[in-house]
Amino acid sequence: MGIGTFEAYVNRLRKMRANVYINGQKLDRSGDWINGGIYCIKQTFDCAHDPAYQDVCVATSHLTGEKINRFTHIHQSVEDLLKKQMMTRLLCHRVGGCIQRCMGIDALNALYVVTHEMDEALGTSYHKRLLKYLEYSQANDLVACCAQTDVKGHRKLRPHEQADPDLYVRIVETRPDGIVVRGAKCCNSIAPYADEIIVVPTRFMTPNDGDYAVAFAIPGDWPGVKLLALPGHHGERKYLKSPIGEVGDVESMTVFDDVFVPNERIFMNGKENPGAVPYAGYLALMFAHFHRHSYTGCKTAVSEVIASQAALVADVNGIEKEDHVKEKICDIIATAELVFAAGQASAYRAVKSASGAYVPDEILTNAGRRLAGKNIYEEYKTLADLAGGLSATLPLEEEFFAEETRELANKYIMRNPKYTAEETHRTLRMIQEHLCSHFGAAQIIAGLHGGGSPQMETITMMSRYDLESLKDIAKYLAGITQELPRYERPTVTPREIMKRFEQMKKK
Amino acid sequence: MGIGTFEAYVNRLRKMRANVYINGQKLDRSGDWINGGIYCIKQTFDCAHDPAYQDVCVATSHLTGEKINRFTHIHQSVEDLLKKQMMTRLLCHRVGGCIQRCMGIDALNALYVVTHEMDEALGTSYHKRLLKYLEYSQANDLVACCAQTDVKGHRKLRPHEQADPDLYVRIVETRPDGIVVRGAKCCNSIAPYADEIIVVPTRFMTPNDGDYAVAFAIPGDWPGVKLLALPGHHGERKYLKSPIGEVGDVESMTVFDDVFVPNERIFMNGKENPGAVPYAGYLALMFAHFHRHSYTGCKTAVSEVIASQAALVADVNGIEKEDHVKEKICDIIATAELVFAAGQASAYRAVKSASGAYVPDEILTNAGRRLAGKNIYEEYKTLADLAGGLSATLPLEEEFFAEETRELANKYIMRNPKYTAEETHRTLRMIQEHLCSHFGAAQIIAGLHGGGSPQMETITMMSRYDLESLKDIAKYLAGITQELPRYERPTVTPREIMKRFEQMKKK
Amino acid sequence: MGIGTFEAYVNRLRKMRANVYINGQKLDRSGDWINGGIYCIKQTFDCAHDPAYQDVCVATSHLTGEKINRFTHIHQSVEDLLKKQMMTRLLCHRVGGCIQRCMGIDALNALYVVTHEMDEALGTSYHKRLLKYLEYSQANDLVACCAQTDVKGHRKLRPHEQADPDLYVRIVETRPDGIVVRGAKCCNSIAPYADEIIVVPTRFMTPNDGDYAVAFAIPGDWPGVKLLALPGHHGERKYLKSPIGEVGDVESMTVFDDVFVPNERIFMNGKENPGAVPYAGYLALMFAHFHRHSYTGCKTAVSEVIASQAALVADVNGIEKEDHVKEKICDIIATAELVFAAGQASAYRAVKSASGAYVPDEILTNAGRRLAGKNIYEEYKTLADLAGGLSATLPLEEEFFAEETRELANKYIMRNPKYTAEETHRTLRMIQEHLCSHFGAAQIIAGLHGGGSPQMETITMMSRYDLESLKDIAKYLAGITQELPRYERPTVTPREIMKRFEQMKKK
Amino acid sequence: MGIGTFEAYVNRLRKMRANVYINGQKLDRSGDWINGGIYCIKQTFDCAHDPAYQDVCVATSHLTGEKINRFTHIHQSVEDLLKKQMMTRLLCHRVGGCIQRCMGIDALNALYVVTHEMDEALGTSYHKRLLKYLEYSQANDLVACCAQTDVKGHRKLRPHEQADPDLYVRIVETRPDGIVVRGAKCCNSIAPYADEIIVVPTRFMTPNDGDYAVAFAIPGDWPGVKLLALPGHHGERKYLKSPIGEVGDVESMTVFDDVFVPNERIFMNGKENPGAVPYAGYLALMFAHFHRHSYTGCKTAVSEVIASQAALVADVNGIEKEDHVKEKICDIIATAELVFAAGQASAYRAVKSASGAYVPDEILTNAGRRLAGKNIYEEYKTLADLAGGLSATLPLEEEFFAEETRELANKYIMRNPKYTAEETHRTLRMIQEHLCSHFGAAQIIAGLHGGGSPQMETITMMSRYDLESLKDIAKYLAGITQELPRYERPTVTPREIMKRFEQMKKK
Repeated sequence: MGIGTFEAYVNRLRKMRANVYINGQKLDRSGDWINGGIYCIKQTFDCAHDPAYQDVCVATSHLTGEKINRFTHIHQSVEDLLKKQMMTRLLCHRVGGCIQRCMGIDALNALYVVTHEMDEALGTSYHKRLLKYLEYSQANDLVACCAQTDVKGHRKLRPHEQADPDLYVRIVETRPDGIVVRGAKCCNSIAPYADEIIVVPTRFMTPNDGDYAVAFAIPGDWPGVKLLALPGHHGERKYLKSPIGEVGDVESMTVFDDVFVPNERIFMNGKENPGAVPYAGYLALMFAHFHRHSYTGCKTAVSEVIASQAALVADVNGIEKEDHVKEKICDIIATAELVFAAGQASAYRAVKSASGAYVPDEILTNAGRRLAGKNIYEEYKTLADLAGGLSATLPLEEEFFAEETRELANKYIMRNPKYTAEETHRTLRMIQEHLCSHFGAAQIIAGLHGGGSPQMETITMMSRYDLESLKDIAKYLAGITQELPRYERPTVTPREIMKRFEQMKKK
Repeated sequence: MGIGTFEAYVNRLRKMRANVYINGQKLDRSGDWINGGIYCIKQTFDCAHDPAYQDVCVATSHLTGEKINRFTHIHQSVEDLLKKQMMTRLLCHRVGGCIQRCMGIDALNALYVVTHEMDEALGTSYHKRLLKYLEYSQANDLVACCAQTDVKGHRKLRPHEQADPDLYVRIVETRPDGIVVRGAKCCNSIAPYADEIIVVPTRFMTPNDGDYAVAFAIPGDWPGVKLLALPGHHGERKYLKSPIGEVGDVESMTVFDDVFVPNERIFMNGKENPGAVPYAGYLALMFAHFHRHSYTGCKTAVSEVIASQAALVADVNGIEKEDHVKEKICDIIATAELVFAAGQASAYRAVKSASGAYVPDEILTNAGRRLAGKNIYEEYKTLADLAGGLSATLPLEEEFFAEETRELANKYIMRNPKYTAEETHRTLRMIQEHLCSHFGAAQIIAGLHGGGSPQMETITMMSRYDLESLKDIAKYLAGITQELPRYERPTVTPREIMKRFEQMKKK
Repeated sequence: MGIGTFEAYVNRLRKMRANVYINGQKLDRSGDWINGGIYCIKQTFDCAHDPAYQDVCVATSHLTGEKINRFTHIHQSVEDLLKKQMMTRLLCHRVGGCIQRCMGIDALNALYVVTHEMDEALGTSYHKRLLKYLEYSQANDLVACCAQTDVKGHRKLRPHEQADPDLYVRIVETRPDGIVVRGAKCCNSIAPYADEIIVVPTRFMTPNDGDYAVAFAIPGDWPGVKLLALPGHHGERKYLKSPIGEVGDVESMTVFDDVFVPNERIFMNGKENPGAVPYAGYLALMFAHFHRHSYTGCKTAVSEVIASQAALVADVNGIEKEDHVKEKICDIIATAELVFAAGQASAYRAVKSASGAYVPDEILTNAGRRLAGKNIYEEYKTLADLAGGLSATLPLEEEFFAEETRELANKYIMRNPKYTAEETHRTLRMIQEHLCSHFGAAQIIAGLHGGGSPQMETITMMSRYDLESLKDIAKYLAGITQELPRYERPTVTPREIMKRFEQMKKK
Repeated sequence: MGIGTFEAYVNRLRKMRANVYINGQKLDRSGDWINGGIYCIKQTFDCAHDPAYQDVCVATSHLTGEKINRFTHIHQSVEDLLKKQMMTRLLCHRVGGCIQRCMGIDALNALYVVTHEMDEALGTSYHKRLLKYLEYSQANDLVACCAQTDVKGHRKLRPHEQADPDLYVRIVETRPDGIVVRGAKCCNSIAPYADEIIVVPTRFMTPNDGDYAVAFAIPGDWPGVKLLALPGHHGERKYLKSPIGEVGDVESMTVFDDVFVPNERIFMNGKENPGAVPYAGYLALMFAHFHRHSYTGCKTAVSEVIASQAALVADVNGIEKEDHVKEKICDIIATAELVFAAGQASAYRAVKSASGAYVPDEILTNAGRRLAGKNIYEEYKTLADLAGGLSATLPLEEEFFAEETRELANKYIMRNPKYTAEETHRTLRMIQEHLCSHFGAAQIIAGLHGGGSPQMETITMMSRYDLESLKDIAKYLAGITQELPRYERPTVTPREIMKRFEQMKKK
């Protein structure tokens, strides 16, 4: 059955080997620290069973024809891309931010496209392996994370140039039945409560970086895998229970301490097959690309959540009709709309890859993610602006309930009388935690860096945009050339990207 | 035949009565001053006959089933809206900016929607009149402008509150066969070379402003119509012939000096029919809305033209590989892509009005136009930045050809050797004129104000956006409410807009 | 002796009555929660004894001629203002942010100016009382906070219009020997470790708000005063000791639960003396003004600290020579320089008030604070940008020291080899806490709201700037007037501000 | 007598040889084309005789002790720098923009500093020559321009690497009595009505660029000098006479067609004296530096003029009390204040060079100029925003006076009744020309590029700012180092700049 349940997921987690390290302790997958994260993942199971969300959360497997959770689906059409984007947006509303499960679907789709290309060009069988893995994932509705970001050492040096060769994950040994990998991936979100860790390269690789051209998937508690974890949540609450109070995550620096990966789980091996090395960058790019398209869904939701909180607190403060308030909220809404429109238009312009998977337009997807990243700090600024200083200085929750202070605290928290003291308190508490809790503050950084910062999107856009053709307009207008061919920017297919990328690297 | 020719259009112009005032002279429609404008309009005829553009420039009349020029078409589907947007973008490339004919199609579509609503609600016959007028327009492929912006007097006073009641166009007399109107519309682009002037209100009207709730269409040389005109072009060129050198326009302050309008050309009369008064604002809004959707096509092209010129001059100067250059050009391209995506997504989300015409999503259309307006000055800044100081200080064209100076001028203009002196000169001349000619500099103001400034889009967006529903997200997350209904912003239909607008005005 | 010691200060604190409420407990002034705050205040004592800082930290009392700590000084000259600004900047460097003691000096100077005006105009003796209080403060080198921000209830209603009259601090009773006050001030920084709480109004008061026109000073543990406190610090550290690890603060919602204030500590009483009511707004403004001038010192330091961290982490990551990195750091440095220059120029243009105290130029001071507030989110964005994702996802400190993980954690944290693993870890830990700890994240809100948000500075600037005179330039150039009087914007004296303010309120 | 008259200046111009090329004609210095420029220069003579301006416009020569026009003065003190800055600001108000004479004083001061350094280091006698030239300039109150910007060819190639070696001005021959120079300088403002052209290098020179390390001064009509000129003015006016209508300028591409320069007018010769080559960049920098300091005066005025026009037209339109209007005008005023404050603080921190001339602080001066350059487009946007569409579409002047249209034009131009039709017309005409005339539009480019674009200021700031010392703050806070030396950014002396520059070039 391709649509799993939260219970089955949690059962799988509970059985996993203890390999999570928090505050000096080696932990299995239970305890308070994990609850915030699995609360988010729970939405992805529950909504697939909820009639109100099934149209977006359930897909039909192209492998088996069965109904599956969309988070394990390979996009077969424009419609699939539009639904994935909308699913992401809707689920993010429910948790006030990141829904945390898109890394898996994005990694699977990227691998799907690239392994197919490799098998065709190199005669390898990575795609066949992936199909089996995919079927297994779909059948069990597995939760996967993607470990992409290597710790990277000195940023201006390539993998093989680093003082320590392990600063990018690499193959240290090839055996008949598999490989041994060493290294560490950081910013590896949800690894401590994922069924599977999918590993892909983080950058282009040169011929000297062959050992680093590696992709594979392993269970989260596989031998040799050590998760140095950082749990996050909005803050302890004793009294004011609420969805936002349940939400959290766990980030991981995932160490591969000489990990053996069996052949059937290897999807790229540049050590063994030098022809695969150029595909490392291609895979890095494809994952980033699908992930950035997911961001056009989640960043829309993030902006909507911020606008929603800003509008609510403006009303609580009694200032919602002020011109400057409207202008500021409009800025956030406009960003949400534009980012989503970019992702939608990007889906409408999608191209079918040779593998059959649909790939959204690259320029537009990046333009959308880039706008979101550029504006995220301004959006938090607006939220703090409209909430006022209490968003940083609100007394602790207990003071609103302890005998000696509760009356005073609740008396003086009152603002717009249409909101009770508790409602006002709930609103300010949520915003205070959004802006100032460790977890809340980390979200703004996720909004900047997640899926690649605006700097990266600029590079991607300008690598792909055909400036020479664009210049034709100016040349025609200036009279340098005599004709203007109808100018419409094409959507570049993945294979063309790969070609351009190969040309680029030659220079 | 619904697809006219440039020759027929020019013949019509030549026959018109002299009522254009330039520099103290009353002129007919010939002379150098008019050539820049009709050069742009020429593209709209020629491309409808050009196989490379026919798919976007030709439509099928829903009235007659005949092929017509899309500039006279009522949008019958999402596809129509997408094609109109793309047509606008492509034609704007050919003239390096505004294609100048969208005001007509936007006014016709707005009238189509609103007259239908009026007739249904009030039992009037405006829509029937419009259908006849539309058939006539389509059959003859007429060029129409839209006179919307009243001179407005004191901006904080309503029409009837002005010191001079004529500061908004008003009906001064109703006769059995028609009305007499007085007033003036400014910023009335292309009126001096339009077949028809379509007049619509510029703002919401209160019951006391009934005389001002008026819409009609008249030929450009109709008795009593006086066009105080301002011709614009990039600059005199004697040697360097080029498309950009041909382009120009004429702006008009169009005075209605007690003009009689016959009944069949009246599409709204609030003096006679008080029930029509609230529709004045609705019509103002609908024209603005269709026009802003056109802007998602033309502003995309404007940004692409600027990016094209910026990329070309960067290459001419030898700096195209610099990181800051790429970043700046990327900003322009990103805006172009996002604005177009907003218009596209807005078309995909269009709703069918009761009249049958398709109306694009309002929030998204405004978000797109708003982004373009906010960024336009920054785009000109980039162009000036990459072109360098010569964009302001380039010696006159003659110096590059006159005997005593030509050798020196052409020697010292050389930059990147891959461009000849003439190519370099052509590039810099075009940019100098774009940035510093009267016409070029006016384009940046058009980019800000045309179709309504960002300020207006903010107001429109925030009037329509359902903030209360948005707040539900925050209330759910904070635990103020217990359920979160699936949140998707709906597209508001024109009729709902009218309802909300009526509610709004009651407050 | 006017230059106190940290020891004497701490001794005073330890003797104070328990009236601090944290997490449901009533606490005296000891415990870990207070250490971060007093660490900062310690710098203000120590540096006054340190030869390297004495030139800026020590002043000469105009009352006694003795050497005193500048934090208790009334500015007697331009030089005093310049030194206060520089002292603030230098001490802030030492704690990586707010030095926390400027509220006292700013409140004293504001009271000094305004009480003098009141006594002259109204025949009261507030200034005389203040002189005694000042002498006492200087002699004992007391640490004062300023409680200005009322909880304010509905923001669009005046104090007397609120549903609950206590939502602004007010006089509920006047007795022969003093007054009884009720209400609460929030965002009252350092109150839990201040010797004295100085209370001033937060806004303009109308005649109906007479009970709210009140200013006074009381010890922090005075009967009826209850401090609902929120302690902040960067995060628990067990191993990596460092100055930034010591820093913290405590914010307070300070409740005046029917507090009796004796006459000698009352500096404004609008209930008793209606003539004093208009001075409430004036005092609110003067405190804000002196405080914003202090911000030109501290915000400079804040930007320098961020630039310093950004430059360090860029080097640690190996990217410090990248163009975009230089551009971003330059933006921060430029803001620091411009904000400081605004404060300096504002000091050079200071006017001597009737009281003898020097008041910096208002337009310039506000322009400086405004720029800082507008840019602060962008600065944090740059820091997160250059630090990378680990700034949000760095594993916990313990993992770098626990036996099972320390080797791996330290191996994989390595970047630019010129920094050791520990140095790299220290740098990332500091930045992670700066960006994501509750205390760090609250600093960005302080950067926005502290001393008034940019919105408030805009209002202040535009209330004071003489736009009519400015228009003279345009009128002359346009030929509307024939002469242009030499145009130099004057610095408005406090008394003129009061006059304009009175005129303004009449409208 | 060191304070000349406009009449004497014009007499000198009239006697000059015809070497100005406009539209294919070789012209002497008379005709309409020159009037706009000399109208501006006239202010610099007249105000030196006007008691209202003498305190800033008149200085005392350190060479002769006589009163001289400040535009020929070498800054002897902080006070001199402050007065120069204020003079620039005040005179710019009178012409609504650039006062056009600062290039001379900035070039003289730069040469003064650098020739002194050269003579000391190299034993040359450039400074002695300059002193004689300076005395002559002061005695005759000569108007000088500065020709710095070479045409530069391919921007990424050094002078000696260009396809044509003449693309930077160079010495082609050294004779006993002087040198022969060839090349062209562009963006050479006011050359056609300057007494003198002072030539300085435009960039750093490597040892291979020795021929290009050249500085000298010649009269504007010297044999071989050819001025390819571009006159600018706001627009023809027949009726509405006004100061802004008088203003104009002439830009020049100044060709040195094998020009002989006699020894006494040569101030740097890298061909003859290789030791002088490194000083070419130093001189380029020093001129830019003094010029950027002048910009802190003129850009302040430019912003004030724009704010003045914006405030006037807002009032004319009746919208001056709107919140968004105040916010936008406040942005402009804030920039004006901050830029001026940067220049002032930079003067207060000036260092005395070895030559005795005072050199303003480099970081601050650049920070000020940079802010102005970054904001200038936004300021024009605000002006267009508040003026409305008529700023682009205002009918021609004649229509307001011609019999058939004047009544209508003046009727419909009316807005706020407190302004007459003519006043309204004058206001809109001025703004229309400011935004859309060739000259007006060129001013925005001058605001970006003049004295170096923000890009250049970033480079200058980051070359000079001591990032290593700045990092000490972060290292201390993180516990990487144990002490924090008091951190105050020093002002770098010219000689240290030269040293650092030499070190930099070695890398």
